[in-house]
Amino acid sequence: MRALVLERRGVLALRDIDLPRSLGADDVRIKMHTVGICGSDVHYYIHGEAGPCVLREPMVLGHEASGTIIEVGSSVTTLNVGDRVCMEPGIPDFRSKASKLGKYNVDPSVVFWATPPVHGCLTESVVHPAAFTFKIPDNVSFGEAAMVEPFAVGMQAAVKARITPGDVAIVLGAGTIGIMIALAALAGGCSKVLITDVHQPKLDIAGQYEGIVPINIAKTNAKQQVLSHTDGWGANIVFEASGASKAIASLVDLCGPGGTIVLVGVPVHENSLDVAGAINKEVEIRTVFRYANVFDRALNLIASGKVNLKPLISQTFPFEESVAAFERAASGQPSDVKLQIRVSA
Amino acid sequence: MRALVLERRGVLALRDIDLPRSLGADDVRIKMHTVGICGSDVHYYIHGEAGPCVLREPMVLGHEASGTIIEVGSSVTTLNVGDRVCMEPGIPDFRSKASKLGKYNVDPSVVFWATPPVHGCLTESVVHPAAFTFKIPDNVSFGEAAMVEPFAVGMQAAVKARITPGDVAIVLGAGTIGIMIALAALAGGCSKVLITDVHQPKLDIAGQYEGIVPINIAKTNAKQQVLSHTDGWGANIVFEASGASKAIASLVDLCGPGGTIVLVGVPVHENSLDVAGAINKEVEIRTVFRYANVFDRALNLIASGKVNLKPLISQTFPFEESVAAFERAASGQPSDVKLQIRVSA
Amino acid sequence: MRALVLERRGVLALRDIDLPRSLGADDVRIKMHTVGICGSDVHYYIHGEAGPCVLREPMVLGHEASGTIIEVGSSVTTLNVGDRVCMEPGIPDFRSKASKLGKYNVDPSVVFWATPPVHGCLTESVVHPAAFTFKIPDNVSFGEAAMVEPFAVGMQAAVKARITPGDVAIVLGAGTIGIMIALAALAGGCSKVLITDVHQPKLDIAGQYEGIVPINIAKTNAKQQVLSHTDGWGANIVFEASGASKAIASLVDLCGPGGTIVLVGVPVHENSLDVAGAINKEVEIRTVFRYANVFDRALNLIASGKVNLKPLISQTFPFEESVAAFERAASGQPSDVKLQIRVSA
Amino acid sequence: MRALVLERRGVLALRDIDLPRSLGADDVRIKMHTVGICGSDVHYYIHGEAGPCVLREPMVLGHEASGTIIEVGSSVTTLNVGDRVCMEPGIPDFRSKASKLGKYNVDPSVVFWATPPVHGCLTESVVHPAAFTFKIPDNVSFGEAAMVEPFAVGMQAAVKARITPGDVAIVLGAGTIGIMIALAALAGGCSKVLITDVHQPKLDIAGQYEGIVPINIAKTNAKQQVLSHTDGWGANIVFEASGASKAIASLVDLCGPGGTIVLVGVPVHENSLDVAGAINKEVEIRTVFRYANVFDRALNLIASGKVNLKPLISQTFPFEESVAAFERAASGQPSDVKLQIRVSA
Repeated sequence: MRALVLERRGVLALRDIDLPRSLGADDVRIKMHTVGICGSDVHYYIHGEAGPCVLREPMVLGHEASGTIIEVGSSVTTLNVGDRVCMEPGIPDFRSKASKLGKYNVDPSVVFWATPPVHGCLTESVVHPAAFTFKIPDNVSFGEAAMVEPFAVGMQAAVKARITPGDVAIVLGAGTIGIMIALAALAGGCSKVLITDVHQPKLDIAGQYEGIVPINIAKTNAKQQVLSHTDGWGANIVFEASGASKAIASLVDLCGPGGTIVLVGVPVHENSLDVAGAINKEVEIRTVFRYANVFDRALNLIASGKVNLKPLISQTFPFEESVAAFERAASGQPSDVKLQIRVSA
Repeated sequence: MRALVLERRGVLALRDIDLPRSLGADDVRIKMHTVGICGSDVHYYIHGEAGPCVLREPMVLGHEASGTIIEVGSSVTTLNVGDRVCMEPGIPDFRSKASKLGKYNVDPSVVFWATPPVHGCLTESVVHPAAFTFKIPDNVSFGEAAMVEPFAVGMQAAVKARITPGDVAIVLGAGTIGIMIALAALAGGCSKVLITDVHQPKLDIAGQYEGIVPINIAKTNAKQQVLSHTDGWGANIVFEASGASKAIASLVDLCGPGGTIVLVGVPVHENSLDVAGAINKEVEIRTVFRYANVFDRALNLIASGKVNLKPLISQTFPFEESVAAFERAASGQPSDVKLQIRVSA
Repeated sequence: MRALVLERRGVLALRDIDLPRSLGADDVRIKMHTVGICGSDVHYYIHGEAGPCVLREPMVLGHEASGTIIEVGSSVTTLNVGDRVCMEPGIPDFRSKASKLGKYNVDPSVVFWATPPVHGCLTESVVHPAAFTFKIPDNVSFGEAAMVEPFAVGMQAAVKARITPGDVAIVLGAGTIGIMIALAALAGGCSKVLITDVHQPKLDIAGQYEGIVPINIAKTNAKQQVLSHTDGWGANIVFEASGASKAIASLVDLCGPGGTIVLVGVPVHENSLDVAGAINKEVEIRTVFRYANVFDRALNLIASGKVNLKPLISQTFPFEESVAAFERAASGQPSDVKLQIRVSA
Repeated sequence: MRALVLERRGVLALRDIDLPRSLGADDVRIKMHTVGICGSDVHYYIHGEAGPCVLREPMVLGHEASGTIIEVGSSVTTLNVGDRVCMEPGIPDFRSKASKLGKYNVDPSVVFWATPPVHGCLTESVVHPAAFTFKIPDNVSFGEAAMVEPFAVGMQAAVKARITPGDVAIVLGAGTIGIMIALAALAGGCSKVLITDVHQPKLDIAGQYEGIVPINIAKTNAKQQVLSHTDGWGANIVFEASGASKAIASLVDLCGPGGTIVLVGVPVHENSLDVAGAINKEVEIRTVFRYANVFDRALNLIASGKVNLKPLISQTFPFEESVAAFERAASGQPSDVKLQIRVSA
């Protein structure tokens, strides 16, 4: 089967590769249509590793995907051949303690696409559990459906924030995930979402949405903005989406008394969360690791028109130009939110 | 001071009345601008009583109000003369157990405008605690601000529902409060809100909002609609806003497994909630009694444009025509959502 | 295999029966030691049906069980032959929407022991999923372990109540489940648990536990007791464990402002929960359907000594006397809390 | 009035001092009986400051108090002369936004006993709001009642932890607050509470309670102990009560997937909470700043016998020996949990 293979650090090839094809009773087979390029795909391409996960043999990339069902397993009752679908890429042990608790995302045995040594989905077709395959509403395109995966991270952040309707939130970092969080928080009940960055093109993209207030912290003081938007109280919710040490150090100061901080961006460097300050305001800090039980909710919000992801699809490449797409992604244009690859027509 | 006085059951007069005028250190004095007519005002006009509250002497009506501050008490630091404001009408004992818990709305000692024997605010000016007086953002009109009180009931329902972003909800009853709930639930994170009634004009008003799906249960089966909008699962949240026995009896059936029911409409007649069915689905049932801590959140959502109350102000009467306004309200036109009285220009 | 078979309404036989014996990769085989007799077993024995579940062919009874593992499936890593265990008797589809949400107890496809047409576990051995089989700590007996199942209902009630440490609760009904709830609520954070009944022997059993206050409502006014134990506020939590119409009608009156009602007992007759009163106090009503994710927690509390179930095992019968045991159970002695059958030594 | 006055850093005097005596309508006057010595009292004695609070003029110490009402204000209805009481020492603005939300402890305008420049209660009598004065049950001594204040910190931690019945917790630090947390967590629903320290005398005191497992981390690996007590999963709840950098750095590692960390000890030095690890396990981090709405709950648990604070009162000094008592406290004996001063007989 043809696939985009990361041979080793820095070397990509669109080539044939032998992949397991057996279809279990609870599985479906999906012909891929669109696959988005995630920052983690690019990270593996450039570095060959991410934290404890190290590429040791060739691996197919890609985990943001949509397609069409071409075969269903014998026990599958909820999906049919021909259904347009998108897929949740991390498969847990459904019988584990974490899964029974409804927190399958923290099950240590999760197998996640394009995380070494697990192959991703930038390939002609995949076999996937029906339980993690979601029908796309008619008014949602394959391109939008392939955006559900990154949007799901924003959804998880919005769910974890336990937004009270009318909350004012701030998101630190206007990268792809930062924007996803802002959109999910806004659709999820916030009255207004401030978002910060130092890259104006990213802020311009975020700022095109009504209700999102971009703040260029190279020029403007975020704290003053937060206070002026919250009558001097501080933000109800502060989302950290940058992983930057400076941002992490500023979280408590931006948050109102008894407010909530949600950590999404994984810090690479040493960082110092203000524990004494957090205690003094009695803030709660929640964290987001991927997502659980949000794909259907994300699709609801996209289908109803409350969330519009279309402006965030910056460019779509044909399958044959996958390598060029990754080179573009690796070049890190601030105005690129999401690059996608169309695997089939 | 000139006021709209309910002399006794069925008899209204716009006349002078002697009202206490002393301003406490924590109070502000407000010149009234706009006051909305609530169903409870009309109920007292027609019946002279509501539940345990019986009119025994003349009482000023009105509790949905906005105006301008004309005097501030000596300890007030957050408000100034000239501020445009709206007021939360139920004043608790701030030191009671319920108030300390943040549930001041269930403090048994709450004093609420236009609830016998407490005078309401359909008068030239009122004295009110600064803590329950809220500044109106510049882009919110006095008419909208006087709608914050009924909208606050919808907000309380949306808060109590603990919406998970993307939930699908249904509201039973498309009266004023039903519509307020639908708008708050939609702004508060639902992807879609179905609303039922038998009066088409009410449904037409609700249906003008994107995301609200009107269902005329005189013609259409609500259960089937809910199932078709939730992929066969049932609603995540069922709001009861009618007080009707039949609606209450249907709540559990409309709700998905593990879902939430929110009771807002007070039933007048015998009713029978399906306890065995509720247990079988392990649903949670929450209730709404007025509101607490939602006026500022409501104003946030109105100011940000996420909630548009303007189409719901059906007609505005000058102060001199207050009695006519109440007669109109008492006639119960299904297309009237909210009638308001402009006390001063 | 030898089993206690309910042949048809009113007819029991301890006889050989052919049962499926294949062991799946995720299963374990357990030699039964002790099985408790539940009210539902007795109900099927007497009535041949319960709600929508009707006995149409011979069925093995029993679902409260402990035993020893005698074989493990090929994928099982957490359990070993020789482990002393107890079993959670309702098996869901692990991939269903409800299961993914962590609410597998409300998965409509749950298969539950001794619920027609599913055989129970009053038999020499059973095959069961490892995920629903729990190791018994060394200091917990087989008899206590067979009590974990009914205690799990009490645990689910205590979990659903979201007890705030120091809460005062009242349980309506001092039958087996009522006592289980009282013990779980007390261990789960309540400072004191009142429990009501009209049968003094039941109250005497409940009252032997420190912290449980028995109230005979044939002689004493429950409301007055609640007020005197809560400084006039009302109970923080009211558990309904009787299913009686009168008890359900009294729930709101016993509950403090903003308090919580937990419905556990399934009402058989018409009943009328006080909806208007519930709204007036803004109470929350939660419901309990079996349990999810509590068996390990229950075992923790029993092993640590915080919960002592031993005094509730009224009598233990040898397997051969199973029919006599059921006859005793069917006679409904108020002083019998739990009768058990020892299947093997 | 005679009082224990901290004249300046390091200088204490039991002397007469002029204090305001006027009684407001909502106040009560209390003749002091017992006052405990808190670590913060000792800190001011030794350092003359704590964080931003600096002693600039003589200040009465003490904030852990019990006594008897000798006068009640004109509006007080809930308390009477002669009532034995204990007092919550931090008075908020009852009308502030934080207070209305039920989070009065984070109201920036709180006035707290013995926090410069506010006088404490180590004096013959005090005037205090009735709303923050709590009647002591008959079976609770003045000494225990004066322990309610430090125990309230443990209660707040237990409330914030949102314990699910049967949870296994670990507390880092077996100082006074650490032990209070352990007792509150155990009474509040945990099945077992591990507690760590390097001082064996502290661990011996903690270990005398059934259900509390002391771990001397000078000799034993805490992580291994946690795993062995939780079947390899990690703690459900990790409480930080030491403020030590090393403890803060270890929190995430001790916590199970999806678990909860509660920060109570204020760190003095640089510290580094493991943000990346927290995200990876999707833990929630809550914080505790003093307490709100727990004094009555604390008294409930003490009165019911679920919490026994008596063994923690290490020594009681007469009022005349207050200075000696503080010298003893300042010497930091590991076996002293709580020293108290008896102001009057």
